Amino acid sequence: MEQHRVPPDTPIDLGQWDPNDTGGSQGGKAEARERLSQLNKELERLQELLYAEHKHKILVVLQAMDTGGKDSTIRHVFEGVNPQGVRVANFKVPTPKELDHDYLWRVHKEVPGKGEIVIFNRSHYEDVLVVRVRNLVPPKVWGKRYDHINEFEKMLAEEGATILKFFLYISLDEQKKRLQKRLDDPCKRWKFNAADLKERALWPEYMRAYEDALSKTSTEWAPWYIVPANHKWYRNLVVANIIVETLQRLDMRYPEEAENLDNIVIA
Amino acid sequence: MEQHRVPPDTPIDLGQWDPNDTGGSQGGKAEARERLSQLNKELERLQELLYAEHKHKILVVLQAMDTGGKDSTIRHVFEGVNPQGVRVANFKVPTPKELDHDYLWRVHKEVPGKGEIVIFNRSHYEDVLVVRVRNLVPPKVWGKRYDHINEFEKMLAEEGATILKFFLYISLDEQKKRLQKRLDDPCKRWKFNAADLKERALWPEYMRAYEDALSKTSTEWAPWYIVPANHKWYRNLVVANIIVETLQRLDMRYPEEAENLDNIVIA
Repeated sequence: MEQHRVPPDTPIDLGQWDPNDTGGSQGGKAEARERLSQLNKELERLQELLYAEHKHKILVVLQAMDTGGKDSTIRHVFEGVNPQGVRVANFKVPTPKELDHDYLWRVHKEVPGKGEIVIFNRSHYEDVLVVRVRNLVPPKVWGKRYDHINEFEKMLAEEGATILKFFLYISLDEQKKRLQKRLDDPCKRWKFNAADLKERALWPEYMRAYEDALSKTSTEWAPWYIVPANHKWYRNLVVANIIVETLQRLDMRYPEEAENLDNIVIA
Repeated sequence: MEQHRVPPDTPIDLGQWDPNDTGGSQGGKAEARERLSQLNKELERLQELLYAEHKHKILVVLQAMDTGGKDSTIRHVFEGVNPQGVRVANFKVPTPKELDHDYLWRVHKEVPGKGEIVIFNRSHYEDVLVVRVRNLVPPKVWGKRYDHINEFEKMLAEEGATILKFFLYISLDEQKKRLQKRLDDPCKRWKFNAADLKERALWPEYMRAYEDALSKTSTEWAPWYIVPANHKWYRNLVVANIIVETLQRLDMRYPEEAENLDNIVIA
């Protein structure tokens, strides 16, 4: 899975990354479904352990263009985990009160505590993406945010957080298909938002903003993964795999049991 | 007032600072009371303007040893301001939920929004003071926090906050007098806490921890002031003066009025 990781201080040209990539997998969807099911079970086991140990904090950041598959990834990767220890934080258009504060204010509130997994569905990265593309603040303001973000995430990591960041990368063509599907399918029409077309028209500007974010904020302590996301089954596999492998490497243990439990008699 | 400011990257030896200092003032208490009263009025005016302009954010950090006068400074300096735009955030012993998160988590929640003044009564600095002296986390953990704090405060400043940090500096002898007074005065006994004596016994360790914090975290964007605090009237004057002068330098303006207000007739 390491081929999807962005090394620190590496300029990224998304034109060199293939959103259709399936990692040379030949098995196709059926095999992928089987493999994902195994990963779901392993994640369920690891999350329970994480919760019991009450030591590590896991932050998963999901970013993508519209229709990129953030919601669907959350549903498929975290299927089966105990909601008691897993939380999704959605960052939508900021409220007036949020805009009165620094952009990390609403984000910091939602970071995971010990034993917790938190998934950011969008994140502080919007403050160097849509905010930049839409000129919501001047360049001298957003230009300083890459450093802020790196230092913020470093602090979180040094205080015990494990951070994984995924950019679900679809192509402009794939987005067209998915938007069209939303229009055609009566059950998906509720998801269609005409404003998405305005964002779509800014695709090249968004890709430049993503390239900058990926180049400047993939660090040892909070790496970015560029996930080929035109094929949903491969996207899910990549994200699930990286999360599971990362949790496995934490070498977690159940807390030591109290002494003399064997001698206890429950009357 | 600049003689009380700690320049950036300057090693601090508190033995060289005099907690009895009154800035050569001869007038004494009566004159000081008159001057403080003027400063109170000016602060009241400036705070209203700050609130109306809704642009700047003011963060005032107060740190001191027990009996150092944090509560009393707040009462005397902020007398008369509108509570609508001024808030005090107290940081006491962290709750279990707070301890599950990084130490800046509970602090970031409380930072000021636009138009607001927030006073931190104790702060994130406790995480390199009591936490260090009491060995609540290992040195390799608290040792990284000076950088975190500088970067955190830098982000706040670059996102529009003005930060002022005051160490109310009393002597060991003065603390003895004040603790004794709490024991002797029936109206002050409620403030006496036997645990304070344990902290008092660690005075030299606390002074070393304060020296490190003052040396490492006084920055252009978030300066520390060492306030001689054996004389309460001088302490209040120094703090009030620095806050008022800082607000004056912000060059605040009332928002522009809507057009044609002169032509409006209210029926």
